[in-house]
Amino acid sequence: MDELARQKCLPRAGVEHQLSTEIVAQHLEQLPGWRLGADLGSLEKRYAFLDFYRTMAFVNAVAWIAHEQDHHPDLSVGYNYCLVRLSTHDVGGLSWNDLICAARIDALSE
Amino acid sequence: MDELARQKCLPRAGVEHQLSTEIVAQHLEQLPGWRLGADLGSLEKRYAFLDFYRTMAFVNAVAWIAHEQDHHPDLSVGYNYCLVRLSTHDVGGLSWNDLICAARIDALSE
Repeated sequence: MDELARQKCLPRAGVEHQLSTEIVAQHLEQLPGWRLGADLGSLEKRYAFLDFYRTMAFVNAVAWIAHEQDHHPDLSVGYNYCLVRLSTHDVGGLSWNDLICAARIDALSE
Repeated sequence: MDELARQKCLPRAGVEHQLSTEIVAQHLEQLPGWRLGADLGSLEKRYAFLDFYRTMAFVNAVAWIAHEQDHHPDLSVGYNYCLVRLSTHDVGGLSWNDLICAARIDALSE
C-alpha cells in the first residue's frame, strides 16, 4: 500500500488504462476494507467515526487529496460515517488512479 | 421560507413531533427544489455547482448549520453536486427540524 500511496494519479486516463479484474483483485489485498462496488467498476470503503466533527475533518482531507490528484470520488456522508466510492469515468471502470487514491486516503490514518 | 429559516431546531424531537403529510406538503411549496424522498419520510434536494471547490464550500456550510442546529443530514457528494437528505430519526419521519434546516440551507444562497 505504501508504494501505491506514493504514486500520483495520471492526468488523462483513457479506455486503454482500464485495469483487469485480476490486477484489481491483487491490489485489493493490500487495501483493507476496500471492496468492489456492485457494478464491479468502482471501489468503495466505509469509514466510521466517533462524531460529526471527525467525519467532516475526514471529508475535507479526502477533498484535498481529490484536488491534488485531480481525481474525485463520490462520497456518502452521515453523522458518523463516510462511504468513499472511486471510479474513473473516462475509463468506464477502474484505473490505477482509483487504487492510488484508495491508498492515499488510507494513508491519512497511518 | 424566511420565517422557517429564522427558527431553531428543537433539541429533543420525539414521536409526537412527527408532521402530517398535509403540513409537509404545505411547506414544501415555500421550499423550491425540495421534495419528499422515496420513503416519504425524508426531504431531499440536489444542489448543482460549477466545480468541486464550490461543492466543498457548500458541504462545509451545510456542516456548520448541522452543527449549530444539532440536526445532521445525509449528504451525497460528487464533483459538481451535493444531494442533501433530511429526516428526523427519533421521530421516524419528518419534523419541523427538517423544514427548518431545509430553509436554513436554502438561505445560504440568498
